[in-house]
Amino acid sequence: MTHALKTTRKQNYADWYQEVVSEAELAEHAPVRGCMVITPWGYAIWESIQRLLDRKLKETGHQNAYFPLFIPLSFLQQEAEHVEGFAKECAIVTHHRLEQNKEGKLVPAAPLEEPYVVRPTSEMIIGAMFAKWIESYRDLPLRINQWANVVRWEMRTRLFLRTTEFLWQEGHAVYASAEEAQQETRMILDLYAQFARDYLAIPMIRGEKSATERFPGAVATYCIEAMMQDRKALQAGTSHFLGQNFSRAQGIRFCDEGGQEQYAWTTSWCGATTRLIGALIMTHADDDGMVIPPRIASTHLVILPIVHKEENLSAVHHFCNELAASLGSVQLSGEPLGIVVDSREGKSGDKKWRWVKKGVPLRLEIGMREVESGELMLYRRDLGPKEGVRLKASELATQLPTILQQMQDALLAKAEAFQKEHICTIDSRDQFYEFFTPKNPEQPEIHGGFAFAHWSEDLEVEEQLKRDLGVTLRCIPLEDHLQSDPGICPISGKKSLRRVLFAKAY
Amino acid sequence: MTHALKTTRKQNYADWYQEVVSEAELAEHAPVRGCMVITPWGYAIWESIQRLLDRKLKETGHQNAYFPLFIPLSFLQQEAEHVEGFAKECAIVTHHRLEQNKEGKLVPAAPLEEPYVVRPTSEMIIGAMFAKWIESYRDLPLRINQWANVVRWEMRTRLFLRTTEFLWQEGHAVYASAEEAQQETRMILDLYAQFARDYLAIPMIRGEKSATERFPGAVATYCIEAMMQDRKALQAGTSHFLGQNFSRAQGIRFCDEGGQEQYAWTTSWCGATTRLIGALIMTHADDDGMVIPPRIASTHLVILPIVHKEENLSAVHHFCNELAASLGSVQLSGEPLGIVVDSREGKSGDKKWRWVKKGVPLRLEIGMREVESGELMLYRRDLGPKEGVRLKASELATQLPTILQQMQDALLAKAEAFQKEHICTIDSRDQFYEFFTPKNPEQPEIHGGFAFAHWSEDLEVEEQLKRDLGVTLRCIPLEDHLQSDPGICPISGKKSLRRVLFAKAY
Repeated sequence: MTHALKTTRKQNYADWYQEVVSEAELAEHAPVRGCMVITPWGYAIWESIQRLLDRKLKETGHQNAYFPLFIPLSFLQQEAEHVEGFAKECAIVTHHRLEQNKEGKLVPAAPLEEPYVVRPTSEMIIGAMFAKWIESYRDLPLRINQWANVVRWEMRTRLFLRTTEFLWQEGHAVYASAEEAQQETRMILDLYAQFARDYLAIPMIRGEKSATERFPGAVATYCIEAMMQDRKALQAGTSHFLGQNFSRAQGIRFCDEGGQEQYAWTTSWCGATTRLIGALIMTHADDDGMVIPPRIASTHLVILPIVHKEENLSAVHHFCNELAASLGSVQLSGEPLGIVVDSREGKSGDKKWRWVKKGVPLRLEIGMREVESGELMLYRRDLGPKEGVRLKASELATQLPTILQQMQDALLAKAEAFQKEHICTIDSRDQFYEFFTPKNPEQPEIHGGFAFAHWSEDLEVEEQLKRDLGVTLRCIPLEDHLQSDPGICPISGKKSLRRVLFAKAY
Repeated sequence: MTHALKTTRKQNYADWYQEVVSEAELAEHAPVRGCMVITPWGYAIWESIQRLLDRKLKETGHQNAYFPLFIPLSFLQQEAEHVEGFAKECAIVTHHRLEQNKEGKLVPAAPLEEPYVVRPTSEMIIGAMFAKWIESYRDLPLRINQWANVVRWEMRTRLFLRTTEFLWQEGHAVYASAEEAQQETRMILDLYAQFARDYLAIPMIRGEKSATERFPGAVATYCIEAMMQDRKALQAGTSHFLGQNFSRAQGIRFCDEGGQEQYAWTTSWCGATTRLIGALIMTHADDDGMVIPPRIASTHLVILPIVHKEENLSAVHHFCNELAASLGSVQLSGEPLGIVVDSREGKSGDKKWRWVKKGVPLRLEIGMREVESGELMLYRRDLGPKEGVRLKASELATQLPTILQQMQDALLAKAEAFQKEHICTIDSRDQFYEFFTPKNPEQPEIHGGFAFAHWSEDLEVEEQLKRDLGVTLRCIPLEDHLQSDPGICPISGKKSLRRVLFAKAY
């Protein structure tokens, strides 16, 4: 069996990923260290994510605002753990003018009194404003969301998954009580998991991070973790309960109903980042390229006119354009469909494979036979390249939403089955090491997958597994069936209250 | 007559502007030099601008993409005029880590080999990608738009109008011929002018910049200029024909249909920036605060329950909520309406004035009398605080779109009348100096307005007027009636081909 991509997942997973990104024209490396250019086809996915998640965040009472890109160094230092967590990987602005030196070369001039850090996250600058805005309990809750670019100076970068600059959404909320703040933290986590499931067709495991993996300065960090096709975990969203740590560091106080001044309780959370596009690729793409879930696609159907004889050209193009026009009002879950007629020059085989690699959900190839019979073959990207649904042109408008939803459901079911297949429960040390040791020397990355094992909240065990196997504790799952299940840690032999999730991770 | 704001436009225009921004809760100064925090009410206006203009740009075939925030210094230097234009006001990243020094103080560490400039505009980084992407005439036209933050190190800043960091949209297109590129440059200029007129209710004068005011590196810069209420001009959008300057500097070449390699023709243009919110304020706001044109508003109608007796509370609130629910499907020009019932605690007078200052287009005050009679008074923000439209609750849904459009039209008509009143044609030197000299020592900024005068393309005249009066040549207007009208420059006495627009400007 041949494939549209040169490299298959089995041959070399990392090269395959790179090839999906470039062949689908999603993004490419910029001539700026560790940065990417998000090209239109990739950016359209980001726009869908933004539009759909933004609506959900607004429905839950969060308002968008915008805060500065630059964080004065003194602000970053207000919370000790926080600055520790970000100091090693930040971009620092130190000058505000360029001047020619004696050799005629442009060099930085006009040094700043206080350097600015390009925001790696905005807790400190948003917190400073919260401290100013909040006076009384009447000002609470205060729920703010920001869509922005952030910068973390990563040494090893990979398109979408880890780049120096990336785009994201960050929420910051302030409450009068710990309970309300905790509730928000969990509500947002569920919202993220549901969004990933409903729109991205990615099943998520929700859990709490261990102290080692907690957000710098947080009391508790919750996360959603997804399994990629190489069975590694990808953290796809986090929600932090910050307790009063940041409000004490920044003076976020309010006067309660009894007239007493109190420190507020804060949360922050980040779920939508351009990293999600990497998660989409590694969940759904195959050896023919990208596969875009319909509910997140900007283009749902491409119509390819196939003309063998010049005399048929206008009849075929006319049919295609009429067909596209007849679908103008069709919707999928309340969103309009994107329909493209690809009339550009070029061989029809090349054009077809270009769209396969780009992952457009549905494809129609229209030649004179289809024009004359009105019988169409609608190819669904997640099935084999020759598999499709046979239907009449006149049925297309009514059938499209159903077929797209079927594809959406099938992608989710497939991802769920894959996750289920590669998760296991492990109770012995040998089994644990065996599970995470790759068998095939040609595929040094492929291993067992996700393991649920007992853990006695022992930092040394985390360190040992990371050192020996490159395995980290992804989360302490929130799923009910895993909540109360005492046992023995297979590594330390100590008593444990519950199983936790271990995996190799991006 | 009393006003909601402490300072009126007549008393002190600059203070009035500042007070509108703060009382309407649109934005505030950030604790970062020259930067602002755009608060939710202001950011919602930005979101409307983005959504509506983005749609128009997509309709004209432009695709969104995203390019890095950082521009390597060597890239900026590729076009000599360009770097000259931006070198004096940029933020420069020189380090990528923070480390503790001997005194335990965090200081920048890990210097970069090549400094990065935080993008003041993206011609050089986008051009570098264009050079890579474009091979043949089949790749053209290439039309890209980016929504992003940009940084220019301004020494004197003012909320929305001039800030170190601001948000904008920048378009970059590449064509095979000069004609097509010029056509795009003018088409986008018209699109910007039309958008400002239709949505922001701001009449614009379209024109070409003189060489002095041209974008660094451009062959021609076109602009739209609006008159603010202090009669100063505000440039609200620019569209640049870059000729082959940037394609030669960056190697943007294509193979034409005859197989010859040619330099491409490029354009860039920027119309939507957060500066437009400043233009909205200075066009429509009054001594009671902000006035938001309905087509750009996120909230169109606020319903205020007025309860004098506790026993009426639930009846009044119920009526308000039912009324709001009954308006759920009402639209203005295809966009859903934003309706808010303000049920928060607080004195009804304070609440009313808060919404007046925020500039929400329509306001209903609902007490028991309205509940019982079903007769409402709908207050329109652009009329006096006591003027409104009397109508039945049952008529509201059908009447709202008409009333909102009437308000939109009235705002535009008022702005047009103001512009017309303060534009004049000037033919003598004395009259010119007189026109631009403020009469009232208490209002040192208020002067005549816009002057159309002859100009012989004389750089010295521009310099003299700037030095003597602080007046600049805003543009050489494109309007037909001004195109061919030879005369004599009142300053130099030299022959002139046409009148140009002079004004003081932001």
